[in-house]
Amino acid sequence: MTPEFKFDFGRGARIGLDEAVFCEGKTVDQISAIVDAVKAKTGRLLLTRLDQSKYEPLFARHGAQLEFDPLSRTAILGQPHDALLMPPVAIVMAGTSDLPVGREAARTLAFAGQTCCEYADIGVAGLWRLLERIDEIRSSPVVIVAAGMDAALVSVVGGLVSSAVIALPTSVGYGVALGGATALHAALASCAPGILTVNIDNGYGAACAALRILRVMATLPKRSV
Amino acid sequence: MTPEFKFDFGRGARIGLDEAVFCEGKTVDQISAIVDAVKAKTGRLLLTRLDQSKYEPLFARHGAQLEFDPLSRTAILGQPHDALLMPPVAIVMAGTSDLPVGREAARTLAFAGQTCCEYADIGVAGLWRLLERIDEIRSSPVVIVAAGMDAALVSVVGGLVSSAVIALPTSVGYGVALGGATALHAALASCAPGILTVNIDNGYGAACAALRILRVMATLPKRSV
Amino acid sequence: MTPEFKFDFGRGARIGLDEAVFCEGKTVDQISAIVDAVKAKTGRLLLTRLDQSKYEPLFARHGAQLEFDPLSRTAILGQPHDALLMPPVAIVMAGTSDLPVGREAARTLAFAGQTCCEYADIGVAGLWRLLERIDEIRSSPVVIVAAGMDAALVSVVGGLVSSAVIALPTSVGYGVALGGATALHAALASCAPGILTVNIDNGYGAACAALRILRVMATLPKRSV
Amino acid sequence: MTPEFKFDFGRGARIGLDEAVFCEGKTVDQISAIVDAVKAKTGRLLLTRLDQSKYEPLFARHGAQLEFDPLSRTAILGQPHDALLMPPVAIVMAGTSDLPVGREAARTLAFAGQTCCEYADIGVAGLWRLLERIDEIRSSPVVIVAAGMDAALVSVVGGLVSSAVIALPTSVGYGVALGGATALHAALASCAPGILTVNIDNGYGAACAALRILRVMATLPKRSV
Amino acid sequence: MTPEFKFDFGRGARIGLDEAVFCEGKTVDQISAIVDAVKAKTGRLLLTRLDQSKYEPLFARHGAQLEFDPLSRTAILGQPHDALLMPPVAIVMAGTSDLPVGREAARTLAFAGQTCCEYADIGVAGLWRLLERIDEIRSSPVVIVAAGMDAALVSVVGGLVSSAVIALPTSVGYGVALGGATALHAALASCAPGILTVNIDNGYGAACAALRILRVMATLPKRSV
Amino acid sequence: MTPEFKFDFGRGARIGLDEAVFCEGKTVDQISAIVDAVKAKTGRLLLTRLDQSKYEPLFARHGAQLEFDPLSRTAILGQPHDALLMPPVAIVMAGTSDLPVGREAARTLAFAGQTCCEYADIGVAGLWRLLERIDEIRSSPVVIVAAGMDAALVSVVGGLVSSAVIALPTSVGYGVALGGATALHAALASCAPGILTVNIDNGYGAACAALRILRVMATLPKRSV
Amino acid sequence: MTPEFKFDFGRGARIGLDEAVFCEGKTVDQISAIVDAVKAKTGRLLLTRLDQSKYEPLFARHGAQLEFDPLSRTAILGQPHDALLMPPVAIVMAGTSDLPVGREAARTLAFAGQTCCEYADIGVAGLWRLLERIDEIRSSPVVIVAAGMDAALVSVVGGLVSSAVIALPTSVGYGVALGGATALHAALASCAPGILTVNIDNGYGAACAALRILRVMATLPKRSV
Amino acid sequence: MTPEFKFDFGRGARIGLDEAVFCEGKTVDQISAIVDAVKAKTGRLLLTRLDQSKYEPLFARHGAQLEFDPLSRTAILGQPHDALLMPPVAIVMAGTSDLPVGREAARTLAFAGQTCCEYADIGVAGLWRLLERIDEIRSSPVVIVAAGMDAALVSVVGGLVSSAVIALPTSVGYGVALGGATALHAALASCAPGILTVNIDNGYGAACAALRILRVMATLPKRSV
Repeated sequence: MTPEFKFDFGRGARIGLDEAVFCEGKTVDQISAIVDAVKAKTGRLLLTRLDQSKYEPLFARHGAQLEFDPLSRTAILGQPHDALLMPPVAIVMAGTSDLPVGREAARTLAFAGQTCCEYADIGVAGLWRLLERIDEIRSSPVVIVAAGMDAALVSVVGGLVSSAVIALPTSVGYGVALGGATALHAALASCAPGILTVNIDNGYGAACAALRILRVMATLPKRSV
Repeated sequence: MTPEFKFDFGRGARIGLDEAVFCEGKTVDQISAIVDAVKAKTGRLLLTRLDQSKYEPLFARHGAQLEFDPLSRTAILGQPHDALLMPPVAIVMAGTSDLPVGREAARTLAFAGQTCCEYADIGVAGLWRLLERIDEIRSSPVVIVAAGMDAALVSVVGGLVSSAVIALPTSVGYGVALGGATALHAALASCAPGILTVNIDNGYGAACAALRILRVMATLPKRSV
Repeated sequence: MTPEFKFDFGRGARIGLDEAVFCEGKTVDQISAIVDAVKAKTGRLLLTRLDQSKYEPLFARHGAQLEFDPLSRTAILGQPHDALLMPPVAIVMAGTSDLPVGREAARTLAFAGQTCCEYADIGVAGLWRLLERIDEIRSSPVVIVAAGMDAALVSVVGGLVSSAVIALPTSVGYGVALGGATALHAALASCAPGILTVNIDNGYGAACAALRILRVMATLPKRSV
Repeated sequence: MTPEFKFDFGRGARIGLDEAVFCEGKTVDQISAIVDAVKAKTGRLLLTRLDQSKYEPLFARHGAQLEFDPLSRTAILGQPHDALLMPPVAIVMAGTSDLPVGREAARTLAFAGQTCCEYADIGVAGLWRLLERIDEIRSSPVVIVAAGMDAALVSVVGGLVSSAVIALPTSVGYGVALGGATALHAALASCAPGILTVNIDNGYGAACAALRILRVMATLPKRSV
Repeated sequence: MTPEFKFDFGRGARIGLDEAVFCEGKTVDQISAIVDAVKAKTGRLLLTRLDQSKYEPLFARHGAQLEFDPLSRTAILGQPHDALLMPPVAIVMAGTSDLPVGREAARTLAFAGQTCCEYADIGVAGLWRLLERIDEIRSSPVVIVAAGMDAALVSVVGGLVSSAVIALPTSVGYGVALGGATALHAALASCAPGILTVNIDNGYGAACAALRILRVMATLPKRSV
Repeated sequence: MTPEFKFDFGRGARIGLDEAVFCEGKTVDQISAIVDAVKAKTGRLLLTRLDQSKYEPLFARHGAQLEFDPLSRTAILGQPHDALLMPPVAIVMAGTSDLPVGREAARTLAFAGQTCCEYADIGVAGLWRLLERIDEIRSSPVVIVAAGMDAALVSVVGGLVSSAVIALPTSVGYGVALGGATALHAALASCAPGILTVNIDNGYGAACAALRILRVMATLPKRSV
Repeated sequence: MTPEFKFDFGRGARIGLDEAVFCEGKTVDQISAIVDAVKAKTGRLLLTRLDQSKYEPLFARHGAQLEFDPLSRTAILGQPHDALLMPPVAIVMAGTSDLPVGREAARTLAFAGQTCCEYADIGVAGLWRLLERIDEIRSSPVVIVAAGMDAALVSVVGGLVSSAVIALPTSVGYGVALGGATALHAALASCAPGILTVNIDNGYGAACAALRILRVMATLPKRSV
Repeated sequence: MTPEFKFDFGRGARIGLDEAVFCEGKTVDQISAIVDAVKAKTGRLLLTRLDQSKYEPLFARHGAQLEFDPLSRTAILGQPHDALLMPPVAIVMAGTSDLPVGREAARTLAFAGQTCCEYADIGVAGLWRLLERIDEIRSSPVVIVAAGMDAALVSVVGGLVSSAVIALPTSVGYGVALGGATALHAALASCAPGILTVNIDNGYGAACAALRILRVMATLPKRSV
């Protein structure tokens, strides 16, 4: 039988983003084998979608080297990357239920050495909550907007800031929220121009996209508009 | 062969709303026969989804008795109902392309003797356009919000006014706007509580719902909250 | 890390509807923290989609102040609002399985001080059950119709009453009932004019919409039709 | 190249239903060749979905032997089958726009020698129209109910008659009527038990199903219930 | 609070089919209350979708009066109806996994006093299994075909018999079997004319439809074709 | 501005299949430019989805070098490839309306030097039509089955032959035939094992797949089973 | 009651593929009865989708005669078929999570006496992993590509090899991966010509299709291209 | 009647992107009125989705001030903005049919003063076409990938470059390409991390997103990674 995985150690060098381990659908043994392989090589790894029930046997084997966050279901092996020294990313979240997804983005940024500011529970049903923070949000070069249901927050933010805006649709909601598809479609069909989108609940992907933008920014010549 | 229609002349008495003629999928001859039947009875009829190309032969037969509006594709036979004497309905529209649908609602209200105010092209991509009119909108007992694409305007209005809010999703947009389904789903999954919805592009239905609300209001005892 | 919630205490003043807590997807700790915050401020809160298994630890912390109804999975903290003094809302339900959703609407109205009458298990497969209650139903200014499967009850009621009619599609049924989507689509495409709709299983939303209508009614001048 | 068709002349003997020609997607030449083949054999043929624009060149070739009905877009070659001598089928139609589909069923029955009664424009938005004809409808052994949009008529009829009920969903409606899918799903998920369904707009199929039922009835021993 | 159910005792007289209890989504207490009400009236009841785990507490209360079949998840209270004295219905099943659904139809027929013959595991992947039984199947006035996945069996049977054919799509299969939707759509779009369809997994409905057909047959005059 | 195309002249050498030109969505000028480029290089090209209206101006420019077939909407520039000397592919078609798609496959095979046999209009509604040709079909190493609607023919053929079977779902049908999706899903969920599928109406792709199979066969050592 | 299964012992002779037992939705007793029937006849059987929890009681009854593989959830009764003596099939897998599905294909091939080579975790996000193995893959007459999410690997392989390519879409992924539908659709709409597809997660079917191709190859005359 | 539009002249100052006119669904008169309003104010406007048939009467009124490009269906009024002085954006297109959408992005960038490089017809079916240009593409800070059908090009590019990658799914393809939904879903579910997506065929939106990224880059401090 063939070996079950082939870790892409060159990904960081190639595209500036380390390969992370998506733990859903993998057994504890498979995850542990990858952790062992990484320990023997770079010693640094991000694990996403890691349930508490899988974390516990992994902790028994790898101990405190794995730093676990139950809300976002992420674990970090080893030290994060050196600080990127770019302005913080804003992570704007519509409701309390969007926190796990937004936090996955925050943890992915932290692993990569990038700071962020979280703005929780400021959906448009109470527009004042957004408006009183908008100047602060506007100062971030990249704004991630995590929202489920109708995702109206995405369009409102998109119409108020000139930064790069990444919609992060979440599966929050029921009925015609359609497991996040309505939020996704609303973001893609936004009336505000130039909104970008990632897959439903893909906090990891939203952060990776932000990192692509920030890394490329860091290497370009400054110019005043 | 059986007669092709059976007009519901009792509908007005029964539910307070006259039967209207939905012209899509009907031939000019069928429509004309209904007009003749109504002329012989009440003399008053609303026709919706009437294309210019069908209006012309109808005009040749029924002349100026049919008052036609090409933007909303509606025609009115005879005099509108007596004025309802209720405060005007607000019809808030996200973009220029939502005008035909919003105007269908306006014409249906006018036929029933109800006034309205139209607020066109005030989508959330330019939030200031809405905010500078919001106090005026708030004073209407019923607010119809016509929007396509992401329909974010519905949730923003719903979070700012205490009136009855009727979302009127439109088929404006392309791709994942899905012919209005995304706007419809976003309205139904709105983060603002107590939003009501009608079918895509159903300006007639939104107006009928407003009339149900206003008629029942008119017969209830006043009370201060 | 940021605080996890930002309760919208001003919502009642702004749109006439208190913010309620949707408990699905929230942990007991998150819910309990909100209850504590509300206790310290207004002392009055509606909780929806609260499972028995979450209610029990909450009861251990907050005791009899939380009045729980297992059928509708709602809890009420503190005293309901003062009575609205409007005629009762009719809640018409097609079958026994629609009761939990209809009851969520009833509880939301009760929390807001509004009375209602429930009519259970009167679907159109036995039309006589509806017809013998229709005069009573007709006298309500707002009629909520909770139905799953084909939701034919919505159109039949809509053709018989002149009140405001709010369709409340439920996820009752299997196969092409599609988790409530068929009921929702049937309500939106109803042959009866002026029907309004909320999201699938959204008893809370249907009640909020009824409250918007009744509140605005209460402040308008009386007029005879 | 191979011959383009292989007419199933044995179908009538095998299952009691002649093969008919579905003309959509066939060229005038293909249809004409089939007509020629049938003329040379049985001389009797039903053509469905035949547009006026295709009928005209066919008429030029085959003349008055083809009896054409523009409303149902059907043509009949030769004489219908001998009368079946069974009670008439009831064809109940919700609205004027359902007539073409209902008429296709009527024409298919007529071709097979079976009588029917059509009940047009008696949808549930005006329930009295149905109730005043229900005793007559109830006396038919097979009732076909043609309805689009929400198809509520199907369930209401199904709850009032003990006959075999065949739902014939039509593509009438717009938006979430979804080209007839909502009517189809509502019929399949009907709260009335024992409803049977055919494809959207399939008047021909509904009639064939009625014929299967009536033919088998005709050969069974009588028994009192 | 309102009573939770309103049993339709007149349904048998009205449409020839007793109301049955669909147990999914009902609590044991609700079901038991209905059983008590029926015991006090007619003493005869069919229960469908009754899980073993719900049956056990019901058995504790109502004992051997409830005759339970675990495969079809049905229970029968009291004696079945008198024998209908019509030829048996054929229930043709594509695979072993279709048995529970086919058996639900068989039990519903048995409750109504109607006999049937079951033909299990004769899908078209082994066409010989069908062909060696086809003459026997052909002799039934009504043929129910239970099939999931591609439901090809429906069209093959429909092309070989002249009886009334009721497709009973099942949720057997995975991936694009789409929980039975592919079988349903294939049956509705069948190339064999005059096929009728019920909802996915609706064995009860297929049997009710067969009973409608057989009851009406029983009251019609005999005639030779 | 960049050049608009970059023809893949190496594809034949790389994967054994020439690049063909899919003409839908291309202008006559774009197609003509590709034809010119090919003329200057290999002189041999297959064009698919070429409407008569586009063919005519192309004929005016390139004349008899383009051999056009209106039924399949294909044109061939230059001489077909040398004969492959493999047994003919069987192309089995359910109905007359499946001919254009089946013929596209036949033309693609012919262009590649591969023979085929077409079997038209032998759907399972008249099973005898298939059974009388099945021995002949069985002798082909690759069988392409073109069918729309329920695509039951795919499963029946798949259960009768041991050859490689390629389902070619067509968009023939209406309503829940869903533009070919039902045929596609039925083929993928077939009860016969080992059926392979291509996209809806993709006669070109089915033929390319057959060529991949036959080419690789031609280079393998013979062995008796 | 009827016997519950009718095993198709002739399938191997008829189409070259033994009937296998799909264990999902079957009880342990049903599976055990089939195993008993096969033991009494051919003694050789493949079981798929067999959960560990069902395997254990089967092992208790049938012991070591059932060889079980937990990763692919397959069991084999008795000895595999004699070796086919054809070159190995390549099974290319995009990620670790695609292994169970790919392994089901491998086990099905092994049961039939066919060898294969597995290439795990070589998705296009790290294209070098594929490119360093492509020459080896290219030498297989049949290449199975198992991939979920976007299934981009299918098109890349299809553009690099001339072999028969069978896409095996998997349900790996979340959100708009849609349980494998996106991978399936991407494979069917591939820009590489001549790709063939099976149902989502259908490793058994992909292997059966490969066997159909290889068996027919084995009986054809050799020819050089 | 209300004025029909309310141009958002402040949008450029607010979010760095001028409001553009989406001409689909607008009449020539409406478009012309907007052009007049802009002429009177800023004199500079981008028009998208402008059909030739609408352009002609506009040209008659506004003459050479409107510079029209028929391939992308865009027109530009007045002079583009001053050059942004950032490195060019790469626009990578899979096939010839993706050109109109890619060109819409190019024109939007040009209007904003931003340069770009187009790479046409380099889909993965001929991977060499991409690989020979990849170093050049890699040097762009933002890469837009326009692809329809399976959109495999998006993942391949995403795995090879570290720049910001914007997927621009197009509606190119048929059948299960689903009007671009398969390309969209494949891009969102990409196995390459950090891919961002816009709506189907939304070349304008992809360019706006690129401008947001580049503008914010231009104002940030340089830093080496």
